Amino acid sequence: MATVSESPLLTPLEGPPVRVLNASGPARAVLVCEHASRFIPATLRGLGLDAAAAQSHAAWDIGAMELAVELMGALDAPLVAARVSRLVYDCNRPPEAPDSIPAKSEVYDIPGNTGLSTAERDARGHEIYAPFRATLAGALDARPDASLLITVHSFTPVYNGRRRDVELGILHDADDRAARHLLRALGDSGLRTALNEPYSAADGVTHTLRAHAIGRGLANVMIEVRNDLLDTPAGVNRIAGLLTPALARVIAEMDPESAPDTNERATP
Amino acid sequence: MATVSESPLLTPLEGPPVRVLNASGPARAVLVCEHASRFIPATLRGLGLDAAAAQSHAAWDIGAMELAVELMGALDAPLVAARVSRLVYDCNRPPEAPDSIPAKSEVYDIPGNTGLSTAERDARGHEIYAPFRATLAGALDARPDASLLITVHSFTPVYNGRRRDVELGILHDADDRAARHLLRALGDSGLRTALNEPYSAADGVTHTLRAHAIGRGLANVMIEVRNDLLDTPAGVNRIAGLLTPALARVIAEMDPESAPDTNERATP
Repeated sequence: MATVSESPLLTPLEGPPVRVLNASGPARAVLVCEHASRFIPATLRGLGLDAAAAQSHAAWDIGAMELAVELMGALDAPLVAARVSRLVYDCNRPPEAPDSIPAKSEVYDIPGNTGLSTAERDARGHEIYAPFRATLAGALDARPDASLLITVHSFTPVYNGRRRDVELGILHDADDRAARHLLRALGDSGLRTALNEPYSAADGVTHTLRAHAIGRGLANVMIEVRNDLLDTPAGVNRIAGLLTPALARVIAEMDPESAPDTNERATP
Repeated sequence: MATVSESPLLTPLEGPPVRVLNASGPARAVLVCEHASRFIPATLRGLGLDAAAAQSHAAWDIGAMELAVELMGALDAPLVAARVSRLVYDCNRPPEAPDSIPAKSEVYDIPGNTGLSTAERDARGHEIYAPFRATLAGALDARPDASLLITVHSFTPVYNGRRRDVELGILHDADDRAARHLLRALGDSGLRTALNEPYSAADGVTHTLRAHAIGRGLANVMIEVRNDLLDTPAGVNRIAGLLTPALARVIAEMDPESAPDTNERATP
């Protein structure tokens, strides 16, 4: 039985830190959106942020949840989505990473994350990251037929004053099978697409892939869309329309028989 | 077989006019969001709207889809959501209603809806409303155990210059069972809640309830939230947090045995 805390970060009215949507969707894939929301629980008093910071890409991946919901509907796949800002806890980082609870993000200082005690950091991990991790693991356990884990992200067009030209980044960790398939499947999409841009596993951004897919031998890919392409419904629909058939091909190509000998799922 | 049009309103990249999300969600309810999106297909050249009108409540129910997705997740119920602006075709209106394709909405003229030919109006109905209607009917046919149809809407705080004080409107058509149960269940929510405000069935806004629930004897309710309560994730979470347990109670109360003798589902 879970310990009942006297001061939980999230009140019952605010709901859980993570949800599985469309859990019974039949597609052989699981979608993940770690940075879906800019929600900051009232107990954290907005982390001391001004309105600009609280609405910026530092707080969430702008447009990523709309895109993820579109992909969920178009592919009919389950979607595991965090419901709390990554500034509270970044569910794509392990607790030992300093930027799991960043005191600074790009140009923004995060006053509510400065000088936290170990107990305060542990509480964030316990109340946000632990349920996220358990929920995603449970969603994958429930779908042993899944052939692909897809994480859905967006990035800011200008970072630290520098313009980013890439429109769609396809990132991988140690297993690059799905990323390379997806890059090929998107060959004539008209999007400026690149492997491991605007950042890569070396920047510590593939934690979810590593923690939930690599160990299972499950093919996996991280999708990064420049967020100015997601700032209207027309933009979201276009990107979803380009990604959907490409992802459907990768899901089909990544069936267990095509996995390498080290695939733990094929040799339980 | 469907006739293939040479100039469909929606291109394949833009996707279908309606989707069922979480179709296998086990809750005994079906959620509907007719005004979920402000998306205008590229073929319609923005209907000649300026940016303010295209983003305004005239084009969609601001915050309604976010709330509907929250309720979908919290209740684990299917959600039927339109993907096209109500200014293209208002899926909560029958084709014979003049405001199914409005030439004016509150203070906004809609140039692209002025002087349409019968063929142009028919094309909107054929490509948007007909699939919406068929998809919702199919979702209900697939869930004969459902005890409640819930439509999720939002309204603007100021309409034609007049301030609206109500925060949550609960609307019904001929069958008021679920609306009255929900009003009771929300008794101590702290929201200014009223039956049939800020408008009612007499204003022609209960078409979905009438077309899809009344004839089936299925209990039904239309929820209208003032959209300034849905303009932040905290606001959406609060309203979803208040509605979820109340709706769960109504779903339980509206089981077929409690239906009146005229319930067609109880006497097939």
